[in-house]
Amino acid sequence: MKIKGRDYRTVWLEAGTIKIIDQSLLPHKFRIVSIRSPREAAAAIKTMRIRGAPAIGALAAYSLAVAISKGLDPGKTKKLLKQTRPTGYDLSYALDCIYGSFRKNGRQGIIEAAEDYAAKSIKACMLIGRFGAKLIKRNSRILTHCNAGALAAVDHGTALAPIRAAKKKDIFVYVDETRPRLQGARLTAFELAEEKIPHAVITDNAAGYFMQTGQVDLVITGADRIALNGDAANKIGTYEKAVLAKENNIPFYIAAPVSTIDLNTASGKEIAIEERSPEEVLSVMGRRIASRSSVALNPSFDVTPARYIRGIITEKGIMKPKEIRHLK
Amino acid sequence: MKIKGRDYRTVWLEAGTIKIIDQSLLPHKFRIVSIRSPREAAAAIKTMRIRGAPAIGALAAYSLAVAISKGLDPGKTKKLLKQTRPTGYDLSYALDCIYGSFRKNGRQGIIEAAEDYAAKSIKACMLIGRFGAKLIKRNSRILTHCNAGALAAVDHGTALAPIRAAKKKDIFVYVDETRPRLQGARLTAFELAEEKIPHAVITDNAAGYFMQTGQVDLVITGADRIALNGDAANKIGTYEKAVLAKENNIPFYIAAPVSTIDLNTASGKEIAIEERSPEEVLSVMGRRIASRSSVALNPSFDVTPARYIRGIITEKGIMKPKEIRHLK
Repeated sequence: MKIKGRDYRTVWLEAGTIKIIDQSLLPHKFRIVSIRSPREAAAAIKTMRIRGAPAIGALAAYSLAVAISKGLDPGKTKKLLKQTRPTGYDLSYALDCIYGSFRKNGRQGIIEAAEDYAAKSIKACMLIGRFGAKLIKRNSRILTHCNAGALAAVDHGTALAPIRAAKKKDIFVYVDETRPRLQGARLTAFELAEEKIPHAVITDNAAGYFMQTGQVDLVITGADRIALNGDAANKIGTYEKAVLAKENNIPFYIAAPVSTIDLNTASGKEIAIEERSPEEVLSVMGRRIASRSSVALNPSFDVTPARYIRGIITEKGIMKPKEIRHLK
Repeated sequence: MKIKGRDYRTVWLEAGTIKIIDQSLLPHKFRIVSIRSPREAAAAIKTMRIRGAPAIGALAAYSLAVAISKGLDPGKTKKLLKQTRPTGYDLSYALDCIYGSFRKNGRQGIIEAAEDYAAKSIKACMLIGRFGAKLIKRNSRILTHCNAGALAAVDHGTALAPIRAAKKKDIFVYVDETRPRLQGARLTAFELAEEKIPHAVITDNAAGYFMQTGQVDLVITGADRIALNGDAANKIGTYEKAVLAKENNIPFYIAAPVSTIDLNTASGKEIAIEERSPEEVLSVMGRRIASRSSVALNPSFDVTPARYIRGIITEKGIMKPKEIRHLK
């Protein structure tokens, strides 16, 4: 992705050290952070300095590989990284990949395995962009939720990959701000501005209004875990937007790499929904919004049943939700 | 309503001066403000120091009456107050009431006409509470959007009136935070805390999740203007929650006084939707959330078509949306 004219990835290895863009500071500050241990990687994931299922997967892959190369315990490191966030599937998929390489070849080629994982993730996102762009007609007005952009992946993004690939078609993007962590307002709007793609931030409450009044042609979001029946877990609020899209006859697509599909999960009912701190709801950027006596509930994801999903855009093509089981 | 143990109204007349609770400062500061001219009243409405259709109506009634009693031009004052906010109907209804009294009796009894308007508004809300409470079963979990509490009316509230009246039934309230102005997190949670009614603030994105997972029994919101066919305009996001309630077979009710029904509006398509400043979206409590290069769209209301509304709770009983035309 371009940031201030330079090419960046969300996570990379530089002279043996893992580097990430600190997403908790964007869009106000752009800072590169070094991740020097699995403990620092776990903390960066938990506190959402890095977020987005594919990006978390890539950092976990790099972190486990570097740890193994330094002689740390592979099993313990894998466990430490795996318990950071429960809902996204790429995390455990990535750890299994690197751990599998270690079981097969030991330390040899372990860094290359992580680089290979990241390169495959980038390629998958590029292909998602290419397939997804075919869905986007000239002058389309597209709504997206949360950030499924380059920042959520290693590069290109998932939901934003087709949008990037179709930018010459005079499109317009509605960006749900995506409370509580505001990844839409903070990150998606930032990426679109850097790409010079016309867009507007809207409150999550206004998505229905723009659909109802005929101003949205297409909805694309990412996914954190897809069950075998095509149900998809994604950022809280995605389910709402999917229901509203269906009610207004607007096609709703998920864009996600095949690595998001969890062979061990039959349906969305089995997906664990992470509950994060109530403080994320009760305060915004350090400012308390509610009374000191108020409490909050903060489910971080929801599950969109397959019946609301027109298709899933993957690096292997666009599939119906019920076909997704054949991809793995 | 009780605030720190004392009884308050949202707006009242004290020794000839209009007083309001400044809602833009809640819940962090509780301050009473004097409104000394129609210009100050108009500014308080525009900047949302007072908000909520019935509360705005009552302030407009007091302001026009006091202006007339002081010899200001009734027509010009009415016009000044009427142009403050376009979507709510109580505003023009209240102004017509006081202007009608002036046309009939001149200045005589004009202050009493405003006091009568406020007293009737309080009584209507009490009756809405009494009728609406019948819908609430023991242990009900109720979701509400925005603030349709005592602060949105003169007292008691509309959507919160049945909740207040049913507080002994061991209920629990989900409070949508209601971006962009956070009236749920700031005001509804504050009122419920003062009334010691168990509740939790949730992001607007999470309402669908709690409905989908069977944790919501009933949804009640207020309305700013109701068309003759039963379509109801209310705070942005209400339409989303109504669609989600229907999708999950959860009854969705509007609570509003008969004064909210606009005889001159056949359907919701004719209701003007106020667009407010993009800054309300791009900043939260003074903190910029999006990049400086981002723009926003900020429709402040949406229209919920009658087919999503199970019933409208009024001071004359609970009506089906299509019956509402017979109330006037």
